[in-house]
Amino acid sequence: MATAPFHVYDTTLRDGAQQEGMNLSVADKLAIAPLLDELGVGFIEGGWPGAIPKDTEFFRRAAKELELKNAVLAAFGATRRAGSRAWDDPQVRALLDSEAPVVTLVAKSDVRHVERALRTTPDEGLAMITDTVQFLVGEGRRVVVDAEHFFDGYRYDPAYTRSAVAAAFEAGAEVVALCDTNGGMLPDWVGDVVEELRTGLDLPHGRDALPGDPLLGMHAHNDSGCAVANTLAAVAAGCAHVQGTVNGYGERTGNVDLVSVVANLALKRGLPTLAGDGLADSTRIAHAVAEITNIAPYTRQPYVGASAFAHKAGLHASAIKIDPDLYQHIDPTAVGNDMRMLVSDMAGRASVELKGRELGFDLAGQGELLTRVTNRVKDAEAQGYTFDAADASFELILREELTGQRPAYFRVESWRAIVETTGGRGGVPDADQRDAEALAEATVKLHAGGERIVVTGEGNGPVNALDQALRHALRKVYPTIETFELVDFKVRIMDAEHGTDATTRVLVETTDGHHTWSTVGVGPNIIEAAWEALIDAHVYGLLHADVEPR
Amino acid sequence: MATAPFHVYDTTLRDGAQQEGMNLSVADKLAIAPLLDELGVGFIEGGWPGAIPKDTEFFRRAAKELELKNAVLAAFGATRRAGSRAWDDPQVRALLDSEAPVVTLVAKSDVRHVERALRTTPDEGLAMITDTVQFLVGEGRRVVVDAEHFFDGYRYDPAYTRSAVAAAFEAGAEVVALCDTNGGMLPDWVGDVVEELRTGLDLPHGRDALPGDPLLGMHAHNDSGCAVANTLAAVAAGCAHVQGTVNGYGERTGNVDLVSVVANLALKRGLPTLAGDGLADSTRIAHAVAEITNIAPYTRQPYVGASAFAHKAGLHASAIKIDPDLYQHIDPTAVGNDMRMLVSDMAGRASVELKGRELGFDLAGQGELLTRVTNRVKDAEAQGYTFDAADASFELILREELTGQRPAYFRVESWRAIVETTGGRGGVPDADQRDAEALAEATVKLHAGGERIVVTGEGNGPVNALDQALRHALRKVYPTIETFELVDFKVRIMDAEHGTDATTRVLVETTDGHHTWSTVGVGPNIIEAAWEALIDAHVYGLLHADVEPR
Repeated sequence: MATAPFHVYDTTLRDGAQQEGMNLSVADKLAIAPLLDELGVGFIEGGWPGAIPKDTEFFRRAAKELELKNAVLAAFGATRRAGSRAWDDPQVRALLDSEAPVVTLVAKSDVRHVERALRTTPDEGLAMITDTVQFLVGEGRRVVVDAEHFFDGYRYDPAYTRSAVAAAFEAGAEVVALCDTNGGMLPDWVGDVVEELRTGLDLPHGRDALPGDPLLGMHAHNDSGCAVANTLAAVAAGCAHVQGTVNGYGERTGNVDLVSVVANLALKRGLPTLAGDGLADSTRIAHAVAEITNIAPYTRQPYVGASAFAHKAGLHASAIKIDPDLYQHIDPTAVGNDMRMLVSDMAGRASVELKGRELGFDLAGQGELLTRVTNRVKDAEAQGYTFDAADASFELILREELTGQRPAYFRVESWRAIVETTGGRGGVPDADQRDAEALAEATVKLHAGGERIVVTGEGNGPVNALDQALRHALRKVYPTIETFELVDFKVRIMDAEHGTDATTRVLVETTDGHHTWSTVGVGPNIIEAAWEALIDAHVYGLLHADVEPR
Repeated sequence: MATAPFHVYDTTLRDGAQQEGMNLSVADKLAIAPLLDELGVGFIEGGWPGAIPKDTEFFRRAAKELELKNAVLAAFGATRRAGSRAWDDPQVRALLDSEAPVVTLVAKSDVRHVERALRTTPDEGLAMITDTVQFLVGEGRRVVVDAEHFFDGYRYDPAYTRSAVAAAFEAGAEVVALCDTNGGMLPDWVGDVVEELRTGLDLPHGRDALPGDPLLGMHAHNDSGCAVANTLAAVAAGCAHVQGTVNGYGERTGNVDLVSVVANLALKRGLPTLAGDGLADSTRIAHAVAEITNIAPYTRQPYVGASAFAHKAGLHASAIKIDPDLYQHIDPTAVGNDMRMLVSDMAGRASVELKGRELGFDLAGQGELLTRVTNRVKDAEAQGYTFDAADASFELILREELTGQRPAYFRVESWRAIVETTGGRGGVPDADQRDAEALAEATVKLHAGGERIVVTGEGNGPVNALDQALRHALRKVYPTIETFELVDFKVRIMDAEHGTDATTRVLVETTDGHHTWSTVGVGPNIIEAAWEALIDAHVYGLLHADVEPR
C-alpha cells in the first residue's frame, strides 16, 4: 500500500522575509536553505523571481550551489495579469526561468479582492488561474496554488471561492493551499470550512490520498493567536500539505511556526511528516536560522525556545526530581531541547541540587553544602542578583562553596572608565550638546602571570571600553581569551523609585564560538555591575577551557 | 433574565511571575494591579501569601493602597497538607490572613501526582480538597479550585480526576479551573474532555449558567502553541471562567495570553467578557505592564504587538489604502492598536495630530507641519527613540518645528564622567575586585546667564554624577531647577545582538512636586543616552515653569 503523501512546505525565505525588520541577502538565503533541508521539509519556497531581483539571483545561484537531500525548491509568483496571456506575461516567464521544479502561484479566491484589487471580473479571475496553471504544468512544472484570502472569501461567497479551487485542480495543480491571509480564523471555523469544501469538491481526505491525488493545503498566519491550532484543524479535516516558517517569521504576527506544527503532528498525532530525524535537531536548526536572520530568538517559543523546558516553581522542583515526565508535555530531547532548572528565590535546596546535577555536580546528600549555596543564592537575590539567566555565575558560586575559593587567574589593582564629549556631530555642537559625540576610554591595572599589566581600551561606551581593556590586559597571559566574545548585554534598573540612585543589574552573555555562558553583576551603577559580570565571564571561560591560573 | 456569569481571571502577578528572568517587587505588583483593573478583569491573583514573603507584603499593602473598580483580589495557595487539619495548617491560615475575598487553591487532580508528589493516598487527596474548601467557605471566602494537571490526569484516570472536581464543588467551590499544567493539550482534546466532564457531572454549560451555579474554568499554558485555541475550545464546551496573564507571561512557554483570549471572545465570538471598554485600551495596558516587568514586548504578539497591524510594502500596499478591512482580521482600534503602513506616513500624521491636541496644540489643517513632525518622529524611532512614554521630548520636537528653534536656556561646552575604583569593600580588595567600590565624578562646562560655569558633581554612578553636576551648574541662574527631582530612570538596550556595541535608550521621569514629565535619550551607551534625556528634562521643566532663557 502506498503511503499517503504529506507535504511540509517551508516559506521562511519568501513569506517569512516579509517580517518587519527582516532583510535577507542572497547569501543569507543560501545559508538558510540547507538548514531547512536538514530539518527535513519537502519544499523550500525561495522567493519571487522576476519581481524581486535578489530572488532571481537566489534561484540562479541555488541551482548551482545548493545540494538538497530532502527538499525541492519552489518559486513563488502570481497568476498572469488580467487580459494577458500566460506565455507572454514576463512575470510568469520569470517563474519558468528560475528552473525551480515547483511553482507556487498566488491566486485571488475572494471575489471582493478580484473586483477591488485586481479590478477585473470574476470570470477573468478564474481564467487567470486556469491559464497560468495549464501553461506551467504544460512546461513540466509541479504547481501549487495559494488561494489567497480563501477563508475570508469562503465566508463571504463560498460558491466563487469553491470555483477558484476547482479551477486550479482542473487545470492540473497538485495542491491548492487554503490561505488564511489575514490570520483571523479560529480552529473550528477552519475545520468546518475545509471539511465542507473537501466533500463539496469530492476530494479525498489527506490520510486516504494516493500519490497523484489532488491535495488541499493550509497556509496560516497568527493574528488571532491560533495559527498552530488552525493548521492542526485543517489537517484533521483533510489537508495534507502545511505551509509555515521557521520561528514563525512573517508579516504582522507572523506565519505559523512550522516546527510547532510538525512537532505536534509527530509527537501528539502520530503523524511524522519530516524526512529523516530532523525533528530531533529542530531546536539547534531554529536557533541557527535565527543567527542568520539576526532576530533574537523568542525564549518562550513552543518546543524550541530557550525557556520551553525551564522550570522555576519551587512547588514543582522537589517532585520533578522524582519523575520529570509528570511535569513536561513531551521529552525535550525529541525536539533537541533540554530540561533546565532555574534557581530563584521561589525555589529551595531541591532546585539547587537539580541545577547542580545539570551542571555536572552531584550534590545529593551534601545537605550542609546545599544549605550554604541556597542561602548564598537567596542573599544575592535579595541584593538584586538573578541566577535563572546566569548559569555561569551560579556555577562559580557553587564551585567556590565546594572548594573554598575562586580560581585566581588575575588580581585587579584598579580600573577607571571615562566618557567625555569631543564636540557636536560634524564638529559643530548644538546649543546644549544633546547630540554631542562622546568618547569612552577605560584603564585597567591588574596582575597576572607574575606581571603587572596596565592597559587602556577605547570603546563606544564605558562598558565596551572596560571589556576591551580587560581582554587586552589578559590575552598575553591567557591567549584563550582571544576566542571569547561578548554577544549579549542586558541591563535592568532594579528599584526605579530611587531614580539614578537605583541598583543596576547587568546580564552578560559570552561565547567562545562553541559554547555560550551567562553571568550577572549587580552594583549601584551600570559600569560597576557590568564589571562584575565581565569578570565572572572571563573566569568562567578560562575555567571551562581548562586553563590553569598563572 | 440574569446574565450568565463569566470570569476573566488574571494571574500575571502569580503564575506570570514564574517566568524566567522575571522578578517582580511588591512595588511592581502594586503598579501592575491597577492596570489589570483598568483592563477590566474580574479577578487579580496577587501571589501566594505565607509561602512567599513578598506576596504576604503585597496583600498587606494592597488592602490599604489599591482601589480597584472592577476586580477583586485572589490569594493563591495550596490545599492543606496530608494528615493535617485545614484550620491549623499555617499555609491555609495565611490565605485567610491575606484578607483577599477570593482564595484560589491548587489541588492535585491527577492521581499519579497525589501518589508520587504528595505521597499520600487517593482518598486523602480528595479529603484535602474537601476540608480546605469547606473551611475557607465557612470563613466567608469565595473559593476557586485550580485542578492541577487536570487534563493529563483525566487522560490517565478519568474517574479519580472527576471525583476531585466533584469534591471541590460539593465542598462549596464557586469555580473549578481545569489546568493544562504541562501545556501539552490540543484544542479537540480539550473540547472533548470538558464536554464529557461537564455532562458527566451534570453541570450547566457556561452560557446557560445562572448566578450561583458551579462554573468550570480553563487554565492553559502554551507548550504546544495552542493555549489560545485550547481556552476557546474550553469555553465552547462550557467553561465560563478563563485564567491567563498579560503578554502571556509564565513559566516555560508562558500562560495563555489573556488579551488574545478576551479579544477573540469579544470580537469573534460576540462574547464581551471585560468590565468596561478596557479592550480598546489593551495595547497601551499590555505595553505599560511590559514597562514594569522590563521584559521587551514581543513585536509579533497577536492583537497588541507593535507589528500586529504593520503591513510591509509589496503585494498589498496599493490595495490596502482603498479598503483596509479586506486586509485586517479586525479593526485595530478595537484593541487600541494602529495599522501601520511601513512605507507610508498616513497613519503617523493622524496620531501626531491627536497627540498634539492632547498636549494643547491645534494642528488640524497644518499639513506641512504635521508631515515634518511625523517624519522627524519616524526618523527618531528608527534610531531607537520612543515617544509613547516620553511626552515631554515629543513636545520639545513639536515646539521646535512650530517655532523653528529650541529654547536656549544654556549652551553646553563639554562634559565628562569618570568612574574609578577606590579599593575593595571595607578597604580590603578581593582578588579580582569584583566587589570593589567605585567612585563616580562628572564635570560639566556650560554657559548660562552670560557666565561660563564649570561644576563637578559626584554620585554613586556616572549618570547620577552628571545629573548632580548639571543641576548644580544651572541652579544659580535658574533657581527653579531646585524643585526638579529625577524620580524614575529606565534603560533598555535596543539591539542586543551587538553586545556592548548596542544602542541604548534611557527614559527619565522628572517631577517638580506638582507635575511629572518624561523624556527620552538614545545613544551608543547609557551615559550619552541619559545625558540627552536629562537635558530634555531640564529644558522642558524650565519651559513649563514659564522661565525665560537668560
